[in-house]
Amino acid sequence: MNTFKVGIVGYGNLGRGVEVGLKNTKDLELVGIFSRRDPKQLDTTSPAYHIDELDSFKDEIDVLLLCGGSQKDLPVQAPQLAENFNTVDTYDNHNEIPTHFEKLDKVAKENNTVAVLSTGWDPGLFSLNRLFAEAILPEGDTYTFWGPGLSQGHSDAVRRVEGVKQAVQYTMPQEKMVEDVKNKKKVDYNKLSAHKRVVYVVLEEQAEQDKVKEAIITMPDYFEGYETEVHFIDEDTFASEHTGMPHGGTVLRQGQTSDKQTSVYQFALDLDSNPEFTAAVAIAYARAAAKLAREKVFGAKTVFDIAPGYLSPKDPADLRRELL
Amino acid sequence: MNTFKVGIVGYGNLGRGVEVGLKNTKDLELVGIFSRRDPKQLDTTSPAYHIDELDSFKDEIDVLLLCGGSQKDLPVQAPQLAENFNTVDTYDNHNEIPTHFEKLDKVAKENNTVAVLSTGWDPGLFSLNRLFAEAILPEGDTYTFWGPGLSQGHSDAVRRVEGVKQAVQYTMPQEKMVEDVKNKKKVDYNKLSAHKRVVYVVLEEQAEQDKVKEAIITMPDYFEGYETEVHFIDEDTFASEHTGMPHGGTVLRQGQTSDKQTSVYQFALDLDSNPEFTAAVAIAYARAAAKLAREKVFGAKTVFDIAPGYLSPKDPADLRRELL
Ligand SMILES: NC(=O)c1ccc[n+]([C@@H]2O[C@H](COP(=O)([O-])OP(=O)(O)OC[C@H]3O[C@@H](n4cnc5c(N)ncnc54)[C@H](OP(=O)(O)O)[C@@H]3O)[C@@H](O)[C@H]2O)c1
Ligand SMILES: NC(=O)c1ccc[n+]([C@@H]2O[C@H](COP(=O)([O-])OP(=O)(O)OC[C@H]3O[C@@H](n4cnc5c(N)ncnc54)[C@H](OP(=O)(O)O)[C@@H]3O)[C@@H](O)[C@H]2O)c1
Repeated sequence: MNTFKVGIVGYGNLGRGVEVGLKNTKDLELVGIFSRRDPKQLDTTSPAYHIDELDSFKDEIDVLLLCGGSQKDLPVQAPQLAENFNTVDTYDNHNEIPTHFEKLDKVAKENNTVAVLSTGWDPGLFSLNRLFAEAILPEGDTYTFWGPGLSQGHSDAVRRVEGVKQAVQYTMPQEKMVEDVKNKKKVDYNKLSAHKRVVYVVLEEQAEQDKVKEAIITMPDYFEGYETEVHFIDEDTFASEHTGMPHGGTVLRQGQTSDKQTSVYQFALDLDSNPEFTAAVAIAYARAAAKLAREKVFGAKTVFDIAPGYLSPKDPADLRRELL
Repeated sequence: MNTFKVGIVGYGNLGRGVEVGLKNTKDLELVGIFSRRDPKQLDTTSPAYHIDELDSFKDEIDVLLLCGGSQKDLPVQAPQLAENFNTVDTYDNHNEIPTHFEKLDKVAKENNTVAVLSTGWDPGLFSLNRLFAEAILPEGDTYTFWGPGLSQGHSDAVRRVEGVKQAVQYTMPQEKMVEDVKNKKKVDYNKLSAHKRVVYVVLEEQAEQDKVKEAIITMPDYFEGYETEVHFIDEDTFASEHTGMPHGGTVLRQGQTSDKQTSVYQFALDLDSNPEFTAAVAIAYARAAAKLAREKVFGAKTVFDIAPGYLSPKDPADLRRELL
């Protein structure tokens, strides 16, 4: 088996997910975690370093897994690090992916590195399935449903409402619509009508339920226009039931192979831990990045550009025998 | 847009599926259907030729879609045709895939052609999902459930029972087990316990139900050991409800991303027409074969070896913008 050495850049949820995920791989070895914070502060038993020390690991690391945030960290860190390292990220700002790609492609080609961007599940596996479904069933419609799953951004927004002590927001697909798509019925899909938002709130002592609820469900951009449920719970319930980071969703395509024959193509994920699964996808693409670099196929790559066999530690003959 | 010219070899269910499927693609043009039978006998309005005329189309066809049977036709036809043409097949004899690959790889490399083998859905898309799921979730178990779907081989076997006038056999997954896997429960899966067989029979006039039923459910290799239901119906019901070729199934993996966190990865197909969907997959891989040949990446290729972007008629920048 090939073995490759990897580093983790950024130690948040995703960085911890990569650290734990690497325990499941025999062919990838963790060299170190690199953070902008004082490495002694990080709650880990893995080797940890300040990010300023990274350049001295240039010859010891085959691929860096970039675990910074998509909003502020990756647009800066990814192009910089791609100068000296092969990289994988989970950049999820869909509108800005083309720009992110162009920046990385230029740096990676100039420096003979491989930069795999926007892995994870959406973008990532969901994107792959949107592509497969559309390429195979050109006549049809694709639907993406997100959830049930915790939305970090919406939870943060609820926590900023006056009177809210703790809060989580789950995005839920409208199950009836999902079933209709599976049952080959016509549906009137839009992102708003296809999802509802379910909020669990622990109130501050003096706060009034009605006021808090009103402030949430009328919040523009976040809740306005969505079917929103608000549940008030106590702190113990919050602590025992709402501290995980579950997520998932479904990509569905109804396609006509001929006038009267329909195919339903379905891909679904149900994840106890969104960051751990996202990390697991990024890890498989880190293996792919290392193989591509060895073959000198430099530049920016997305999940669309990488043959699936690269993701596996098994060799092609074993894959054909065992999995085809 | 690139446009490619294709030919169909063999005009059975799959060949007809490719013919109808090509009506949904703007970038692939059908040059002709090539059959071992007298082309005048074929019930088609497309150009049809005897297979002996194929060599004279060498310069007019970019890719041949091989639609012969896996048992007898493809092992002979595929290596022969790969000498002069780029080819795609749906070879589904799982145990013999490594041999089929080796034969095709040799011929294709010697003759600078591309031979894509074992596309379709199983092998094909199901294989791809087994690979993705295992590469991303190394700790876990993968389950494949087939059906509800018509099994040609089992239907044929029932039709050979004395007293049977018409028959179809549907393979059905045990729904309870599928639900258990989705719900992250442990299951005791084996192919037999995970499926049941449902048979619809139209009897010959003198035939006895009990005898026929007994002969079916005790048939070695086909039914013995399976939960089997036998339903007796009249000819009209048979004609109106049991002449389609539906199929599908589900690939599921339960994977641990860490000790207490499970991910469920699911891929499912529900197909009104098995041959039309299989053809649709083969068509997308024909496009990929043509692109690979243009890039001079010769040899045998499986779905594991082909980057997903090759399947789409869209260019990479559009794919990134629209689907990532
Ligand atoms: N493609 C997909 O399917 C998918 C799915 C989920 C998430 N994602 C992406 O993954 C990105 C990372 O998510 P995440 O949940 O890991 O974000 P996060 O926990 O906020 O971590 C982001 C960065 O913030 C810093 N950080 C973390 N905890 C900190 C703390 N306590 N104090 C100060 N700084 C801290 C870390 O960098 P330093 O160690 O350098 O300080 C870390 O790399 C998201 O932005 C999202 O775009 C993608
Ligand atoms: N990978 C997958 O997911 C998948 C799924 C479904 C099927 N398959 C594969 O696809 C293969 C083809 O399936 P199929 O349903 O198209 O088989 P089929 O209808 O039996 O056709 C096979 C060949 O038999 C000949 N033929 C067809 N009808 C005939 C007739 N009336 N009289 C004489 N010859 C006839 C045709 O060759 P000529 O025109 O040269 O005579 C045709 O190419 C199967 O063997 C299976 O392995 C794969």
